[in-house]
Amino acid sequence: MDSLELLALNHFPLVEPGDDLSSIIFDSIKDNELIINKNDVIVIAQKIVSKAENRYVNLKTIEISEEAKDLSKKLKKDEGLVQAIMNESNKILSTKKNVIIVEHKLGFININAGIDLSNVPSENLALLLPKNPKKSAKDLQNSLSKKLNKKISIIITDSMTRPYRSGVINFALASHNIQSLVDLKGNKDIYGKKLRGTEVAVADELASAAGLLMGQSNEKKPVVLIKGFKQDGSETNDAFDLIVTEKEDLYR
Amino acid sequence: MDSLELLALNHFPLVEPGDDLSSIIFDSIKDNELIINKNDVIVIAQKIVSKAENRYVNLKTIEISEEAKDLSKKLKKDEGLVQAIMNESNKILSTKKNVIIVEHKLGFININAGIDLSNVPSENLALLLPKNPKKSAKDLQNSLSKKLNKKISIIITDSMTRPYRSGVINFALASHNIQSLVDLKGNKDIYGKKLRGTEVAVADELASAAGLLMGQSNEKKPVVLIKGFKQDGSETNDAFDLIVTEKEDLYR
Repeated sequence: MDSLELLALNHFPLVEPGDDLSSIIFDSIKDNELIINKNDVIVIAQKIVSKAENRYVNLKTIEISEEAKDLSKKLKKDEGLVQAIMNESNKILSTKKNVIIVEHKLGFININAGIDLSNVPSENLALLLPKNPKKSAKDLQNSLSKKLNKKISIIITDSMTRPYRSGVINFALASHNIQSLVDLKGNKDIYGKKLRGTEVAVADELASAAGLLMGQSNEKKPVVLIKGFKQDGSETNDAFDLIVTEKEDLYR
Repeated sequence: MDSLELLALNHFPLVEPGDDLSSIIFDSIKDNELIINKNDVIVIAQKIVSKAENRYVNLKTIEISEEAKDLSKKLKKDEGLVQAIMNESNKILSTKKNVIIVEHKLGFININAGIDLSNVPSENLALLLPKNPKKSAKDLQNSLSKKLNKKISIIITDSMTRPYRSGVINFALASHNIQSLVDLKGNKDIYGKKLRGTEVAVADELASAAGLLMGQSNEKKPVVLIKGFKQDGSETNDAFDLIVTEKEDLYR
């Protein structure tokens, strides 16, 4: 594996609730005159998946609990936003740095439950993560593979803050038809010594790479095609398997 | 910014202590017949920087403290390795999951102080991180820019485990002549709304992208050229600035 090419789809339209995202992506691939090969990876921003799935919530009309009221007062944050975060979460882990760190209903840990206030069409709207990103990735992979007549791979990506490091990077929220975590255990190093259990989160690395072209503000580049990433076509784990439980987490 | 190209340098030689790494990289770029442009990013694996700088330590001859003896017994780990980890660290943060999580002398938090036991030429040797990766990146950038007659950017990368996520990904240990953390505050989103303080760790994303070609076992691809990443040539922060202190860290 010697080279990789990343191509952002240009002139990608704004996505509205109810849109058929796979048709829009298919049309954009044609408009951009891109050739698709088997196992090309199409990385899609979570935001347009959520928009197509109408995952908007109106922060002015959401029903506010007493708990959300108390917390919003304490943190001086919008009541509606606090409630939306709570609705999306299994539990709040910490608020001590004046941000709300939660275990999301989907299992992972992040700030504000992945709720997006930028790039939404109104002040009062927030955008939630897809209800079932694993299914969204599978449906997009099936539908796009059929339309393109090539078995492609899908990664749905979002940006995330991280412990220990400044700034956000893109990670793989979900994927389909790609081995997301590659286990090198038993592979040999350059001196012939067997490696002891290194697993590489290639889905996250692919998402980060795509993030370089997607940008985070007004780039309108929510879909990136990655060509040249060699994969053997197996899929024993998807990006959802990259979430570790507290018990498995070496840092907790 | 619509496309990125990543190219691994092929036939890269094994690096030995005392080697002039910038000459080796320069020669390899010529051998690979690659054209270099201004602001191309050359991503270099930490491992070959450490090897050139002779950052090997012999775990059989290292002087073992009582503290290291006790800890190695408790964790059933090699005394020499435990001592090497302690020597490289400001403090041990946790050993509760039977791994040694430290604050490295360089400031960041990781398992085993970034000490490498794979891809070293003898069972008894371990490879430490470069003594001053910031300076290594600067020296490589200066020297390669001169040789190539183009002002290129350098990222030195290593793989790391992460809280909350399975598997390692590559991150930027150090960099030179590249804005590592891009602040989007004040940029507008697609609806014209100003963004509130999103910072993007582009150096980490570039490192992750390069990691896809470098591999972690016996690929012998420790240098990756990234072409097409648009940067304005400013550098108000380098990859070292991506380390957050406990006080700044939203998750601690």
